[in-house]
Amino acid sequence: MEKINVYEKLGTFNDFWSPKIIGEMNESYVKLVKLKGEFVWHLHENEDEMFMVIKGKMVIKLRTEDIVLNQGELFIIPRGVEHMPVAEDEVHVMLIEPKTTLNTGNIKNERTVENLEII
Amino acid sequence: MEKINVYEKLGTFNDFWSPKIIGEMNESYVKLVKLKGEFVWHLHENEDEMFMVIKGKMVIKLRTEDIVLNQGELFIIPRGVEHMPVAEDEVHVMLIEPKTTLNTGNIKNERTVENLEII
Repeated sequence: MEKINVYEKLGTFNDFWSPKIIGEMNESYVKLVKLKGEFVWHLHENEDEMFMVIKGKMVIKLRTEDIVLNQGELFIIPRGVEHMPVAEDEVHVMLIEPKTTLNTGNIKNERTVENLEII
Repeated sequence: MEKINVYEKLGTFNDFWSPKIIGEMNESYVKLVKLKGEFVWHLHENEDEMFMVIKGKMVIKLRTEDIVLNQGELFIIPRGVEHMPVAEDEVHVMLIEPKTTLNTGNIKNERTVENLEII
C-alpha cells in the first residue's frame, strides 16, 4: 500500500480543468486539478463536492455569493447547488467527490472530461 | 454557506486523539485531529479511512509495514486493515471517513470517543 504525496503528484501534470485521480475510498475519488480562468455554471444533482486549495487562490461562485478560497481552506458544495469555479491565477486544488461525479455536472460540453486519468 | 479554514479550526482545540467534525458530505465527515504518542491497534470493518497530514509527521503502523506521512501526504487505510497511528511529536491531521466510523474501530476502550464535537 502506498502513501500519496500531493505535491509530487501535482508536479506530474500541467493541463487545466482536467481532474486526475490519486486515490479512492468509500465510493469516492480523491482528485487533484489545476485551474486557471473561468469554468462553466453547473450543478451535481446527487453528489456533494469538496474543494480544498493546496496552492493559490480561487473563487467558487454561487448564485447567491462568492466563496473565496485560499491555501488551507476548503468548501463543500452541497448537491443541487449551482456553482462556477474561477481562478484569476493558477490554483492547485484537491477534490473529493463520489465516483459518479462528472466535472461539468448537469452540463455536457467541450469541457466535460469523461475518462479521468489515474496518476 | 461557509468555507472552512483548516488552520483556524486547528487553533480552536488542544486535546489529542479526539477528532472534531468540520464538515460533512456524501455520508462522510471531514474531521481534524491532533495526535501525540501511540494509539491502539484497530480496524474498521466497513469503512475506508483517509489520513492527510496538515502539520508535522506521523506513522501509520500496519501489520506488514510502516507508512510514514509528512505534511502534504495522505494515506487511505482500506476497510478491514489493522492499523495503529503513532506520532513521536504532535501532528495535525485531516480525516475523511464515513459518519459511522468509530475512532477505535472494532475496539471499545477508554480511548473510544462516541460523540464527536462539531467545531
